[in-house]
Amino acid sequence: MRYRETGVDVHRGDAVKRDIAARIRATWGDAVVPVPGGFCGVMRWPAGERWMAATMDGVGTKLHLALAEGRLPGACADLVYHCADDLLAHGARPLAFLDYIAQARLEPEVVRDAVDGMARACAEVGAALLGGETAQMPDTYLPGVVDVAGCMIGEIDPVLFRDGSRVLPGDRLLGLASDGLHTNGFSLARKVLTVSELASGDPLPGGDGETLADALLAPHRWYGRAVLPTLTDPGLHALAHVTGGGIAGNLVRVLPARARAIVATRAWERPALFRWIAAAGSVPEDDMRDTFNLGIGMVLVVAADAAGRVSAALAAAGERVHEIGRVEEGERGVAWEDAGGRG
Amino acid sequence: MRYRETGVDVHRGDAVKRDIAARIRATWGDAVVPVPGGFCGVMRWPAGERWMAATMDGVGTKLHLALAEGRLPGACADLVYHCADDLLAHGARPLAFLDYIAQARLEPEVVRDAVDGMARACAEVGAALLGGETAQMPDTYLPGVVDVAGCMIGEIDPVLFRDGSRVLPGDRLLGLASDGLHTNGFSLARKVLTVSELASGDPLPGGDGETLADALLAPHRWYGRAVLPTLTDPGLHALAHVTGGGIAGNLVRVLPARARAIVATRAWERPALFRWIAAAGSVPEDDMRDTFNLGIGMVLVVAADAAGRVSAALAAAGERVHEIGRVEEGERGVAWEDAGGRG
Repeated sequence: MRYRETGVDVHRGDAVKRDIAARIRATWGDAVVPVPGGFCGVMRWPAGERWMAATMDGVGTKLHLALAEGRLPGACADLVYHCADDLLAHGARPLAFLDYIAQARLEPEVVRDAVDGMARACAEVGAALLGGETAQMPDTYLPGVVDVAGCMIGEIDPVLFRDGSRVLPGDRLLGLASDGLHTNGFSLARKVLTVSELASGDPLPGGDGETLADALLAPHRWYGRAVLPTLTDPGLHALAHVTGGGIAGNLVRVLPARARAIVATRAWERPALFRWIAAAGSVPEDDMRDTFNLGIGMVLVVAADAAGRVSAALAAAGERVHEIGRVEEGERGVAWEDAGGRG
Repeated sequence: MRYRETGVDVHRGDAVKRDIAARIRATWGDAVVPVPGGFCGVMRWPAGERWMAATMDGVGTKLHLALAEGRLPGACADLVYHCADDLLAHGARPLAFLDYIAQARLEPEVVRDAVDGMARACAEVGAALLGGETAQMPDTYLPGVVDVAGCMIGEIDPVLFRDGSRVLPGDRLLGLASDGLHTNGFSLARKVLTVSELASGDPLPGGDGETLADALLAPHRWYGRAVLPTLTDPGLHALAHVTGGGIAGNLVRVLPARARAIVATRAWERPALFRWIAAAGSVPEDDMRDTFNLGIGMVLVVAADAAGRVSAALAAAGERVHEIGRVEEGERGVAWEDAGGRG
């Protein structure tokens, strides 16, 4: 099963994004800090000493599964965590969040559940739920579903700002364990669930007894609690949030020219959920890599002599850290290395 | 034709909003400046000297008409103007805008048109188009349509911040002319167009030769160029952006306790478009008032002795200004006064 067949054409979206980049840049002026491939936008605040970061995201098709399972609050909390991790990738701390909830006909319980999940997650990441809009559009939305999008605003101490510019050959890749699919790959995962012989309430094959629904809808992990304190470490060179496009598709966003990242696929154990998806959906390995986080929700690029202390600090803060590869001089990009044992 | 019959139940949405207010407030902490009924959220920036304002909005059903007429860029520009006017109501200046564009299947031309309109409007209001998300969700959206939402972030000099707290009995209401429906009332307006015997290309009855499409899709006016400079005038007490809910429904949002606004319906000439909608759709006057701006896109509440100079300054900056009423002591609310000639 190829990812495109499920209805989400990643590459078509990318082409659109390139086409419109010039029009967007024309609005930037001097205040915007260009972050090519950035996970969020960054601009200098008028007051001077801080920068502002902001990102817009949708929950995506995780909403459908969440609605079907009666777990909408969790999927909407995930939107907040997702945005907060996008800010974190550039060293930003959450300040505020605003949401957009739209349906064919507004169902009060759906709106309440969505806000409930977002408010809970906002409190957790330290963002004020500053505003929101509910829209009722019977000629736009299919009946019985909901779309939820949100914008998170954060602040950056310019000293702690990270992009790809500090990354050097010799750096190590630290992978922070994910808690499941997070918010990406659900169009494919739902399709696999449909063609498989299992129901969402069945146990995940190879799992620890959790149901497929539990595994698929596990919350998007917020890495800020552990990672924000490590931003003062000059050995932490860059951060990549593993979202749509998988590990390689996101890690490349923080690589400078002439830097090639090598990801050792056997450096960590792929969680049972991803193994089941690949098997039940006959999903080729390339598609698995392009679509899913495969168990790594955030990649930190760190100086070789800092890898130990950063890793220890993150582990002490509750993260499961794997050294998953390295940066070499070479053509800018990410290569997968299948040889070698676990790191 | 009652507004609810067209598929948008304003009051149901309001009930939902009340239900969730407590959950939202729990996330606010000390940084958020409470603005009851506010047009945007306001919080103190960490750096201290400025405040931040932010608002999330959708284009709404104006999109359908715009798509049908091949004028999507204009409707998406309107979203930017709408957000900028929401910020302006509390004294904020635009800084940045982020968009969300979603379709069943992304059509590159649609996305390009949407971004084109938003980028143009961002340049006009002085906002950087800082980010955006495009989402392809075939199980959420009806085919062939698009939804567009956006979040605008602005800055406020706290000295220029306005809410309802300065409003006093004796104040005058200055209405700034709108350029049409702006972005509200389109569900009803489209229905009226459907039941009328006219096509969108026909001339607007009573108009100056413009087509119905031209009149219906006229851009949402941005008032910042004229109004931002007047914020330094201490006689300007409050501002209300006339959006969903009409003049009364929005003016009441900036009235303090024991302040009653009286709007003299004959103080300005109702534009031909609104007269045609009322006649062609047999729309009761109450619904017209609750749904449309009726020719007034923003209401400024000013001290009686400042009305002349504020009005002159706005007129000099290109606005058409009508003195449309006054504030009295009384039960908090807005009353319509039908007697009297033009002001």
